Amino acid sequence: MSAACPSREVLKHVTSRWGVLVLLALEGETHRFSELRRTIGGVSERMLAQTLQWLERDGLVNRVAYEVVPPHVEYSLTPLGRQAAARVRALADWIETSVPRITKTWADADASEAR
Amino acid sequence: MSAACPSREVLKHVTSRWGVLVLLALEGETHRFSELRRTIGGVSERMLAQTLQWLERDGLVNRVAYEVVPPHVEYSLTPLGRQAAARVRALADWIETSVPRITKTWADADASEAR
Repeated sequence: MSAACPSREVLKHVTSRWGVLVLLALEGETHRFSELRRTIGGVSERMLAQTLQWLERDGLVNRVAYEVVPPHVEYSLTPLGRQAAARVRALADWIETSVPRITKTWADADASEAR
Repeated sequence: MSAACPSREVLKHVTSRWGVLVLLALEGETHRFSELRRTIGGVSERMLAQTLQWLERDGLVNRVAYEVVPPHVEYSLTPLGRQAAARVRALADWIETSVPRITKTWADADASEAR
C-alpha cells in the first residue's frame, strides 16, 4: 500500500464515501441509477455517476443499458465486485455492531468537555 | 446504514482516505506522529491530525503524550480499533491480491478507447 502503488487507487475507489455504499446497495440486487440514488440517500447525481464510473472501470460493477422506451440503465456487481462487497459488508457489519460503544465514547467525550 | 444513522459517520471515519491507512499502519505497532506520516506517505500534517482526532474520538485510537524533552506523542490502536483494523486489513489484503486483475481491466479499457 505504498503511495505509488495502484492498490492505493483501488482502495480509494472501494472505500470512497459513496463507493462503500454502492457496493453494499448492489450486494443483494441489481439497481437502476435512480433507485440506487434513493437507496443510498444523500448522494448527488454527479457523485454517484462518478463513483459508478470508477467501479465500472475497476471491473467491480456492470452497467447495462436497455434500449427500450423509456431507456434505462441497470447496475449490478461483477463476480470481482461481489468479492469486494463481501469484505466491505464485514466491515459495515462490525460498525453496526460497534456503534453503540462508539456513540457512548462520543457522549463521554461531550460530557467531559462540558465539565 | 441510512443517511441519518451514526453508523454512517463511523463508516466515514474508518473508510476515509487516511483513516484506512492509519488503521493499517497502527495495526502492528505504536507510532509517533511523524513516523506515522512517513509510513503512510502522501498525507499532509493537517489531514493526518484531523483523521487521528476522528479515530481517537471514536475510541479506536489511543493518544499518549510524553512530557519528556523533547516532548512526543504516541498513537496506538485500542482493542476496538484492533477489531476495526482487522476488517480493514481483510479488505486491503483482498485489494492487494486482486490488483493485477483490476489493472488488467484498466489496460483493456485504455486499449479499447485507443482503438
